[in-house]
Amino acid sequence: MHKITFYPGGKTVEAREGQSILRAAGSHGIHINATCGGKGNCGKCRVILREGDITSRESGFLSEKDLSHGVRLACQSFPETDLVVEIPLSSQMRRGSKIAQGSKFDELQKSVQSACDGEFKPITRKIFLRLPPPNLDDNISDTERIKRELAKRGYEAAEIRLNLHILRKIGTALRARDWAVTLTILTVGNVIEVMDVQPGDTVNPRYGAAVDIGTTSIVVYLVDIPTGKILDIASTYNPQVRCGEDVISRMIYASEKNGLDELQKLAVGAVNDMLIKMARNKGIEPEGIDTIIVSGNTTMTHLFYGIDPSHIREEPYIPTATFFPLMRTHALGLEINDFGVIYAMPCVASYVGGDITSGILASKLYKRPGLTLFIDIGTNGEIVLGNSDWMVTAACSAGPAFEGGGVKFGMRAMDGAIEKVSIDPVTFDVKIAVIGNCPPIGNCAPIGICGSGMIDAVAEMFLTGVIDLRGKINMDVGSDRVIAGEDGPEFVLVRAGESGSGKDISLTEPDINNIVRTKGAIYAGFSTLLGEVGYTFADVEKVYIAGGFGNYLDVERAITIGLLPDLPVARFEFLGNTSIMGAYMALLSKALRRDVEDIARKMTYLELSVSRSFMDEYVSSLFLPHTNAEQFPTVLKMLESVRK
Amino acid sequence: MHKITFYPGGKTVEAREGQSILRAAGSHGIHINATCGGKGNCGKCRVILREGDITSRESGFLSEKDLSHGVRLACQSFPETDLVVEIPLSSQMRRGSKIAQGSKFDELQKSVQSACDGEFKPITRKIFLRLPPPNLDDNISDTERIKRELAKRGYEAAEIRLNLHILRKIGTALRARDWAVTLTILTVGNVIEVMDVQPGDTVNPRYGAAVDIGTTSIVVYLVDIPTGKILDIASTYNPQVRCGEDVISRMIYASEKNGLDELQKLAVGAVNDMLIKMARNKGIEPEGIDTIIVSGNTTMTHLFYGIDPSHIREEPYIPTATFFPLMRTHALGLEINDFGVIYAMPCVASYVGGDITSGILASKLYKRPGLTLFIDIGTNGEIVLGNSDWMVTAACSAGPAFEGGGVKFGMRAMDGAIEKVSIDPVTFDVKIAVIGNCPPIGNCAPIGICGSGMIDAVAEMFLTGVIDLRGKINMDVGSDRVIAGEDGPEFVLVRAGESGSGKDISLTEPDINNIVRTKGAIYAGFSTLLGEVGYTFADVEKVYIAGGFGNYLDVERAITIGLLPDLPVARFEFLGNTSIMGAYMALLSKALRRDVEDIARKMTYLELSVSRSFMDEYVSSLFLPHTNAEQFPTVLKMLESVRK
Repeated sequence: MHKITFYPGGKTVEAREGQSILRAAGSHGIHINATCGGKGNCGKCRVILREGDITSRESGFLSEKDLSHGVRLACQSFPETDLVVEIPLSSQMRRGSKIAQGSKFDELQKSVQSACDGEFKPITRKIFLRLPPPNLDDNISDTERIKRELAKRGYEAAEIRLNLHILRKIGTALRARDWAVTLTILTVGNVIEVMDVQPGDTVNPRYGAAVDIGTTSIVVYLVDIPTGKILDIASTYNPQVRCGEDVISRMIYASEKNGLDELQKLAVGAVNDMLIKMARNKGIEPEGIDTIIVSGNTTMTHLFYGIDPSHIREEPYIPTATFFPLMRTHALGLEINDFGVIYAMPCVASYVGGDITSGILASKLYKRPGLTLFIDIGTNGEIVLGNSDWMVTAACSAGPAFEGGGVKFGMRAMDGAIEKVSIDPVTFDVKIAVIGNCPPIGNCAPIGICGSGMIDAVAEMFLTGVIDLRGKINMDVGSDRVIAGEDGPEFVLVRAGESGSGKDISLTEPDINNIVRTKGAIYAGFSTLLGEVGYTFADVEKVYIAGGFGNYLDVERAITIGLLPDLPVARFEFLGNTSIMGAYMALLSKALRRDVEDIARKMTYLELSVSRSFMDEYVSSLFLPHTNAEQFPTVLKMLESVRK
Repeated sequence: MHKITFYPGGKTVEAREGQSILRAAGSHGIHINATCGGKGNCGKCRVILREGDITSRESGFLSEKDLSHGVRLACQSFPETDLVVEIPLSSQMRRGSKIAQGSKFDELQKSVQSACDGEFKPITRKIFLRLPPPNLDDNISDTERIKRELAKRGYEAAEIRLNLHILRKIGTALRARDWAVTLTILTVGNVIEVMDVQPGDTVNPRYGAAVDIGTTSIVVYLVDIPTGKILDIASTYNPQVRCGEDVISRMIYASEKNGLDELQKLAVGAVNDMLIKMARNKGIEPEGIDTIIVSGNTTMTHLFYGIDPSHIREEPYIPTATFFPLMRTHALGLEINDFGVIYAMPCVASYVGGDITSGILASKLYKRPGLTLFIDIGTNGEIVLGNSDWMVTAACSAGPAFEGGGVKFGMRAMDGAIEKVSIDPVTFDVKIAVIGNCPPIGNCAPIGICGSGMIDAVAEMFLTGVIDLRGKINMDVGSDRVIAGEDGPEFVLVRAGESGSGKDISLTEPDINNIVRTKGAIYAGFSTLLGEVGYTFADVEKVYIAGGFGNYLDVERAITIGLLPDLPVARFEFLGNTSIMGAYMALLSKALRRDVEDIARKMTYLELSVSRSFMDEYVSSLFLPHTNAEQFPTVLKMLESVRK
């Protein structure tokens, strides 16, 4: 057993026999980025060995120079002695910028209120009962007394069930406040289940939480149920990231020994932490929170419930569940009210999950008569096309390029990421905007490029002729930013002297290739869905863009590279995190829960990965902006004007 | 911490600081009789201190001679050093004689078969499904596939619920045997709950158990569900006896720290032991047992479920539940199938429990047009009067005399107990029969007297003039068996030389007084119930006597002392243990489960303890046979003939 001291922080941890530096760090809560989950495939978990000896597996990711500077991959390095290890900025997880808020929430609250006719209906109902105390002439049992009172109040049921916990506490609860109790009841079919019984009148206060379990981030709304008010919002990176950055690597991780359990506990632990902290800040007992709505993609939902997601990954891609029965929160390890319940936004298929049904609910697409396209671009691009009558949906495995994967200097949209790029068509000078507010002067030195930056960069490179319609770099363009790198030609966006890492930040031909494939997959998804239902882009009245990515996206640039269809900009609308919005709505409204279940049932899922027409569309989309450039008249015009 | 070695057995255990010998023994599974639960009130836990020192609390139960022989009360004795302790025969619990069996079971099985039209319907149903495997065109989730198949098979439900355990195993289960699975389903109202899913066809074999949780004994039937065959029967003393012999002392014990938990675990542990042993004997995996029906009085049922019974004991005598919702067996600690269910025979009130509704089910009283009396005499005498139209029921707290409590040499009907007594009217010679088959010659030396022996003895003493109609011993009867004892006059049934304990076995005046009060309470119960509904004993067409006690009862002698009404002997019928019979029937038949629930709802409960007319009837019943002797014409005739 060797000790490892990590900097920054200086925390010393013990590494178990055979444990890599990455695993040792992870098992003590120290994060090192690792897109591939520690398989040695992504090269992201670079650390600098300051003291001590290790054995190290071969890795193609490290140059001679790297090695001479002590750089190692944490997942491939095993301590032989006590170590001192530095985690460089590029390998540290940093908190995302807070989700844009503002007056949106009042609007959200109002829209739910109107959907409920003002009366919120969370999943369980709390009822205050003042029971007639028993006497020798009225000596039915405690539970029969409860049932009789419920019947009197009009709660008809084929059966009223009380579980063992309730049976064990009901006698005391009834007598604690003179036969005044508050029941929490759940109605399923014609059966009423008593979920909790508390002495006295505890109908108010009452709290619930909406939880968006994203592959990358987890967001929680703490909600005052009686008023529907969002009391607080918290977000954090999904700590499962340490087990793999995308759903596929997490599914693989889940299939390893204890992997599923670890992933489940990580996500639930993060939610617990946030809830407990928020409750404390607001002076609320976590016990007062008794309802949780989770919204996540199909894999995230399986993992949150501790259900093996492995069949999602194998053809024919079958999840265990798309509708998740109501559960008690304590069964999942949630540290709120002992008798709380959890409801999951229903999924549609393996790669169209509760985050999408939630998004459709929040976007109201399912109530719009006009043809609408809903897109959520992340590692997967999920697409819904439809209106109030019908909906088709598909997921295109776009790849993680826009989230930083497979792109040399790719990173998520966080501090230090280039989010905007413009290139002077004459001088090829590059102007950039960087995310973050880093010390000392509020201007971050760039360390990489995020999705919106990539889209800008590729669009500008295309318009300025740095790359051609195949994405090949033109070595003869006449700029010293075009250089021959290790992987072929590359374009330097930021020179070493201005970069946070002291190295050139560039886009390589393979990077551009990845970006083009990603945008191509998404656009091909749109085309295929439209084709399946006999429509064209011109018929689309509205395009909703959901997800954090959308907040930074420049629609014109996205059209330029052929990611988004060439429609008037006014038809596009950024909705933000519709996954959490839908969860919040479902927390408060029975009608909207019914709606979202109808949405899930109504959606026709198209499996693109085996679709012939998708393959054709995809191949056509591997050009800038597209093989059939006439689909992008605006872009053609731009090209003309720029090249003049 | 001191060690105590107990003989017989020679087992050495450690006594925790402040633990009495009784508790130390009990916590290591060594039984010492203690009617009062260790309060020092019953004087039954006599042990002989062979080695070591103790501190001992004062106790009026031990004579100088006792003390000089090392006799101590285990509950009042606390080790100061390591000890060697002998538990004399009289303080040892012994196994009861096996319940009479015979051809009754075939009859029972046939009667259930006819009630089910031959098709047994246990609580959960097992269904074998061969599902169409998923493919890219049929890619609904595993759970939706199950639901679709159930709908196809005609299982309509407002909702099909699957709990977390099922969700976590269903993916693997479906794929283990090529999409052939066996579901165990439960229908409640219009909701179907999937209780288990197993790969392949596991519909058969399948086992269940009927369990009678008596205050004194626990009886278990192991049943082959598909055929209804009773595979094996086991019985044991209820190990809760060590916490108190009657329901009242157990309720008090339950109110002490950890008492409820201990009582729950004792009963469940006994059932587990028997089930596991029976399963092993029959070559069955305990996992194959998935349904348990328990039948017990209201207190026993509460304790088995771990529900605080304390309100049963306090006016107005309210149990927590009379109908117990279906539970999962593992929630109670039953070590059978992980997904098994337990159903409790419904209770009527605090002192009329599931054993009685079970008895009414088994006796078929509720289907008889003629007026029928059902009695179950134990510590409490429970009475049901009625027919197919109506039923009234009551419990008379008869006291524990017939079970050995409050009678100097009283004991339960087990080896060494005098069960039959006859007295020569001239010589006053006593002939006795003793229960058991003790070595060496199959003839047990008597050590005490059980209920049936007491009834015989009092009847004979009354007929021969040893006692008068008030139960007072006639000192001038002219027999040297009438002696002046410590507590006043007594009648020696067995002289010291013939007794197993080496001491006279006698009945004292206080003993007789207790027996008269007991029989008086029961008879007053009959009278009160009849009076309430406007009938007399002459209207009673049938008297069913349930319970183990009934097996040994001499009806004529019971009439002689005024315990049973003076009806023709042919109207009496001994039914045996109807509690377990009813549980067995409910295990196999949905119709009979409905019947027993109807029985419980239909019965009108009379609280005798506050009934004015019961008090009057009780006072009138404190004579032999009764104040109004004309109610017992046969007895009057006997008295005449004997005294001639």
